[in-house]
Amino acid sequence: MHEFELIKNYFQKLSQKSPGALNLNDDVFFDKKNKLVVSVDTYTEGNHFINFKKPELVIKKIIRSSISDLICKGVKPKYYFISGSGNKKSFSKSNLSKIIQALSEEQNKYKIFLCGGDTVFSNKLSFTITSIGFANNIVYRNKAKINDDIYVSGNLGDSYVGLLLLKNKIKLNNTLNKYFTNQYFLPTIQLKLMNQIKKFANTSIDISDGLLTDLDKMINTQKLSYKLYLNEVPISKNLKKIIDLKKLSKINYISNGDDYQVLFTASKNKRRIITKITTNFKIKLTRIGTIHSVGKKSSIVDHKNREISLKNRGYFHQF
Amino acid sequence: MHEFELIKNYFQKLSQKSPGALNLNDDVFFDKKNKLVVSVDTYTEGNHFINFKKPELVIKKIIRSSISDLICKGVKPKYYFISGSGNKKSFSKSNLSKIIQALSEEQNKYKIFLCGGDTVFSNKLSFTITSIGFANNIVYRNKAKINDDIYVSGNLGDSYVGLLLLKNKIKLNNTLNKYFTNQYFLPTIQLKLMNQIKKFANTSIDISDGLLTDLDKMINTQKLSYKLYLNEVPISKNLKKIIDLKKLSKINYISNGDDYQVLFTASKNKRRIITKITTNFKIKLTRIGTIHSVGKKSSIVDHKNREISLKNRGYFHQF
Repeated sequence: MHEFELIKNYFQKLSQKSPGALNLNDDVFFDKKNKLVVSVDTYTEGNHFINFKKPELVIKKIIRSSISDLICKGVKPKYYFISGSGNKKSFSKSNLSKIIQALSEEQNKYKIFLCGGDTVFSNKLSFTITSIGFANNIVYRNKAKINDDIYVSGNLGDSYVGLLLLKNKIKLNNTLNKYFTNQYFLPTIQLKLMNQIKKFANTSIDISDGLLTDLDKMINTQKLSYKLYLNEVPISKNLKKIIDLKKLSKINYISNGDDYQVLFTASKNKRRIITKITTNFKIKLTRIGTIHSVGKKSSIVDHKNREISLKNRGYFHQF
Repeated sequence: MHEFELIKNYFQKLSQKSPGALNLNDDVFFDKKNKLVVSVDTYTEGNHFINFKKPELVIKKIIRSSISDLICKGVKPKYYFISGSGNKKSFSKSNLSKIIQALSEEQNKYKIFLCGGDTVFSNKLSFTITSIGFANNIVYRNKAKINDDIYVSGNLGDSYVGLLLLKNKIKLNNTLNKYFTNQYFLPTIQLKLMNQIKKFANTSIDISDGLLTDLDKMINTQKLSYKLYLNEVPISKNLKKIIDLKKLSKINYISNGDDYQVLFTASKNKRRIITKITTNFKIKLTRIGTIHSVGKKSSIVDHKNREISLKNRGYFHQF
């Protein structure tokens, strides 16, 4: 069962009296009256991270993944809670020192603070991160409008190459290996966009599951479709290099998630302000598609406007 | 390593810039400026609950354990998040229905609402519950005063007997078996006390680890000692019956936690108001000891004022 179905079928009715829960159909909980924004996510070994050989990198990655949920909504994360389940080896003194050092560095980088948590014994290693921020308003999911432009921040796909390298599925030279695994463990969170996004975005989501999956999620209760221009989807020079060299299919590299870039839509009349903000704040924002009425079928087209058929549309947390 | 040492040695310095975290030395996080109160706890199979044969009872128990942290501080829980890690069997359709039914009943009973959460695949079953409330002030830990009376709500020890029964360590007749296992799974949370406790308590904690362990925790940064009168510690008629019958040691039955009763101290001049509230609101509150200066050694005495020596002072989450 997909996580989405699980939530929809079973948990949704429990949240109906709590409007802030947004019917559990957003990445954050928003209590407008109390201005509170909360994100809760669980990360398990073998699923959300490969192993715990480099605790400092795993910790940094999951902290960034957690605060990314708030940042893509235009909300500054203020504090966080971390609950770890693991065995003695996972929480050895050496690993604890590395965990603390990593948390400390992330705290300084993102101006967030540890506020509590829990540590329990378990054979399976997992972490639950709760991130909290305050805001008068957020950018919601499912608020796209017909004819909106679709934008994405930064570049997509580097993280997936990092994952393939870490799993020994591909091999690259040392420089590229370092570049891509760094992108996997230490995604660049769009902090600067956080303060600007409410000025132009109608709806937003962070790309954790993959461009297409998250695009579907962003508008999943709206009767809308989209058209994506694969050619426009931004990738790094390094990724372009290996795609060209190895004749790989670009679509596979941008649909696998862990990018933590921000996907959003904006009305066409916001193009000017978006260009201005892009320049002034040095934020890379790329227009990659358009929102249409549901009469049209959603499609991804290549540079010759030919539709691309897709088998695997992204990553689901499977039960 | 004790959980306390783990927190103290490694995590405390990360929370120092965040005054609300109370140096991670309280059961809740309190952001006074935003009036926000948060509790985060992880519960694992084999540790915090024996197994998942009765999902509805496990779920009710962990929800009550989580909101108990807020209630003992005089804070009304408002909403909660639940993150579950488990395998297909744990989250079968049948189990999910039972989980939802149990959550729904707890929501009605405690007027709380599900606001989000996460479900991930893992071979080891665990849940992290985040409970959130709002308050202008809370009853803190480590605010006891010399000569304070020590009080406890309800009865202690029933839950431990329930645990022994579930583990087949003891046997009782059906009626008693049902009574005690019910007390284990469905502890009576002191909702009525929640609205009154700020009127008289200097400091408070809920008893999850055991009377003595939690008493130590409640004043662990204060230079204070305590004297407890074992005879005064309230137990149910059923527990008294089996202690008398089987010639058991009372101290063992009140030190093992999972009671979720509220332990607090109050100045002697509050005795009148406490008696009044006890009567008016039908809340059982029992005076069981006194806070002393650190010059005296902490002690537990029997009905003849003889000191009782203790080996096992309660339950620690061991790493």
